[in-house]
Amino acid sequence: MKDLLDIAPLGRAGIETLLDLTDHFVEVNARTIRKVPALRGRTIVSLFYEDSTRTRLSFETAAKRLGADVMTFSVSSSSVAKGESLRDTVKTIDAFGVDAFVVRHSSAGAPHMVARWTDASVVNGGDGWHAHPTQALLDAYTIRSRRGRLDGCRIAIVGDVLHSRVARSNVEAFGLLGAEITLVAPPTLLPPAVSTWPVRVAHHIDHVLDDIDVCYLLRMQLERQAQGLVPSLREYTSCFGLTADRHRRLGPEALVMHPGPLNRGVEISQEAADAPNSVITQQVAHGVSVRMAVLFRLLGSGQQIEAVSEDL
Amino acid sequence: MKDLLDIAPLGRAGIETLLDLTDHFVEVNARTIRKVPALRGRTIVSLFYEDSTRTRLSFETAAKRLGADVMTFSVSSSSVAKGESLRDTVKTIDAFGVDAFVVRHSSAGAPHMVARWTDASVVNGGDGWHAHPTQALLDAYTIRSRRGRLDGCRIAIVGDVLHSRVARSNVEAFGLLGAEITLVAPPTLLPPAVSTWPVRVAHHIDHVLDDIDVCYLLRMQLERQAQGLVPSLREYTSCFGLTADRHRRLGPEALVMHPGPLNRGVEISQEAADAPNSVITQQVAHGVSVRMAVLFRLLGSGQQIEAVSEDL
Amino acid sequence: MKDLLDIAPLGRAGIETLLDLTDHFVEVNARTIRKVPALRGRTIVSLFYEDSTRTRLSFETAAKRLGADVMTFSVSSSSVAKGESLRDTVKTIDAFGVDAFVVRHSSAGAPHMVARWTDASVVNGGDGWHAHPTQALLDAYTIRSRRGRLDGCRIAIVGDVLHSRVARSNVEAFGLLGAEITLVAPPTLLPPAVSTWPVRVAHHIDHVLDDIDVCYLLRMQLERQAQGLVPSLREYTSCFGLTADRHRRLGPEALVMHPGPLNRGVEISQEAADAPNSVITQQVAHGVSVRMAVLFRLLGSGQQIEAVSEDL
Repeated sequence: MKDLLDIAPLGRAGIETLLDLTDHFVEVNARTIRKVPALRGRTIVSLFYEDSTRTRLSFETAAKRLGADVMTFSVSSSSVAKGESLRDTVKTIDAFGVDAFVVRHSSAGAPHMVARWTDASVVNGGDGWHAHPTQALLDAYTIRSRRGRLDGCRIAIVGDVLHSRVARSNVEAFGLLGAEITLVAPPTLLPPAVSTWPVRVAHHIDHVLDDIDVCYLLRMQLERQAQGLVPSLREYTSCFGLTADRHRRLGPEALVMHPGPLNRGVEISQEAADAPNSVITQQVAHGVSVRMAVLFRLLGSGQQIEAVSEDL
Repeated sequence: MKDLLDIAPLGRAGIETLLDLTDHFVEVNARTIRKVPALRGRTIVSLFYEDSTRTRLSFETAAKRLGADVMTFSVSSSSVAKGESLRDTVKTIDAFGVDAFVVRHSSAGAPHMVARWTDASVVNGGDGWHAHPTQALLDAYTIRSRRGRLDGCRIAIVGDVLHSRVARSNVEAFGLLGAEITLVAPPTLLPPAVSTWPVRVAHHIDHVLDDIDVCYLLRMQLERQAQGLVPSLREYTSCFGLTADRHRRLGPEALVMHPGPLNRGVEISQEAADAPNSVITQQVAHGVSVRMAVLFRLLGSGQQIEAVSEDL
Repeated sequence: MKDLLDIAPLGRAGIETLLDLTDHFVEVNARTIRKVPALRGRTIVSLFYEDSTRTRLSFETAAKRLGADVMTFSVSSSSVAKGESLRDTVKTIDAFGVDAFVVRHSSAGAPHMVARWTDASVVNGGDGWHAHPTQALLDAYTIRSRRGRLDGCRIAIVGDVLHSRVARSNVEAFGLLGAEITLVAPPTLLPPAVSTWPVRVAHHIDHVLDDIDVCYLLRMQLERQAQGLVPSLREYTSCFGLTADRHRRLGPEALVMHPGPLNRGVEISQEAADAPNSVITQQVAHGVSVRMAVLFRLLGSGQQIEAVSEDL
């Protein structure tokens, strides 16, 4: 396993191996000294062509806790601004001597191209509308840690599925792990290919609320309104928002999830976001542990997790 | 002691404990290898909602010299730009597993809110016009290192007191340590509450020059002129600037201080800034040591300073 | 040796000492764990007044691989924006306790001024049109590693010599090492002083192609066209570009070099850039090793390279 670009190639076994490995790093992150020297002397570069402080810091924190050196390649102040191609940028960074690239890019497939241009490992940190595999892994881990397993778990993914790499990767991961998925979105925000996905579809959140174990809300990109894809935010909330009333109807056993950052009052109400059955903060926390697991799996060749999880 | 948000709650004893601790770190910073492993494996995040490379690098240098990992949360390229609330941003970073936040914010009280939202330690790196406690500690340390004590020391704080968190925190710290403080400012740049402060007030620098041990010049924010609070920079300098003539009159025993960055030729002349009795550079140097002391006190629970100040 | 500001003061012996030292770090960078603890506990600051992610990351990677702490002073968000002078900025950073400054500045001579204001070491990371000594060292190293020596090596430097610090430093370094240099440029892009340099001059790349061992292409700054210094990019390419045809004529033994980032299709064709005799990627890789050698030589006083090149 050289790269992590997509969920599907992992298969159920590959996902479960990573989630089992994550258990070790959750334990490391609960210590006072949250550090293991597994990747000491290794260099990991974050190459982000889209701003995302959250995701970048999550990866960089994971890398540093494994003892790696981190290089942040900020696109705005770089040769890219001088017109350098993605390939030349990658070749240049690669020549510095790098063990892994974490790539975020607005074009679907960009991380896959990077993986062909370098012998270093490549982790897809989100590419266009295509995929965001570490988000799917941390979401699956969060559900598993609360419910034991995803088999038979009824999950609704609510919102702008069309433009969401999170939704695509989650459909793959949750599906491989045996969950029953319902996408809840207006027809304008569903991809044409959805009919071939292993999911059910609904067009109003009220149609699914009584029959789900997980309510996963996607972030509403506020610019979709200007594009005419959503009549108004108020109307969006009335059909797809997890309001306080709906949150009560959902019941205390169902989990509330969101990839962040939240538009409070749009796709999720204050009450739902901060309720005891909301696991949004745990998703963020598990993100660091999942990314430690991914980096360890890609770069920690031959090391036993038991050996490295000793205190630094 | 979980947080450092203000000077007053420390009291005289709390301030002196931190200044005594600072002595150790001044000694560490005089070595070739300026590093002690006291906070190895800890994570400190700088969350700066106002640009301040000087203060941020001073804190981050302090954190790294204690062996901590540093996370820089750059507000401009973050979820904040997408409308995320301060609370959600703090909750997210907190979930990464963070031991301390250093917070700078243009709103007074923002670090205090952060402290309520997290179990991590919070250090106020400057909030609005309200407080800048580590600046006051480094200033007090600088005076103490040159004069032995602040008791009875006659200190003039000159300039725009109204908009200055540095002035407010210094009045508290210098006062608790027994100094006699005179604020020197035009009436338009003094806060209404100044009558309740334990200070004297003067409206011309010439009225205090002969009777002070320390001349502390505040940075003149050049935009105050456009706001009509200062008639002209030339007039400001004529009443409140430490010109070369005034610097000679001040005498070689009095200390010249400034929090930086300097407006040379406005509040301070070239001659005064670079004179032997100017301790402006020492203030910067002591800033790193004071911040090491603060972070060690907040996070180094149970460790003896003598034990950790051994070479790395 | 306190600073590295220019090539000339090194002399041939000084250059060769650094290139020999670089051999050790090339070996370190070929390991899985690319790290030696030679500069543990030291602080190196990159002070870049011009954006250059490539050069900055190369230096910072070098510093981290030697175990040093790195401070990045980003000019855009700093006191410089508030009007602080270069001298005050340097004095402030110096007071943090810094072992070396890496300075890039648009004004020729800025790093030399910095070197007078601090006892720390200063490395010129590129100043105006004047010098870029570490680029020259990495270029010399790259040629030496492929050809054994530069003595008698026939090198053409092609393009905008007038505005190129790379060209100036390379003429010095290649000359000291015994190479025969030809500058190939239009008269408008040659400095008036070129007649005093130890070089030959040509005005068309076709005039030199058959008689060179190294074809070193300078980056064409696209704004030169607007300034009227170049009639058109097409015309520039027709006289000075290493097209596919010319690359074939050059032959497989000659090296193709470029400091990057590339304008593919302008000064260099796709075919030439990616050919087996192109050593552009090796230049980048050697950049990290050369900078490790420079920092080790300046800061690793008394240490034997054999001792520190043990695994961390």
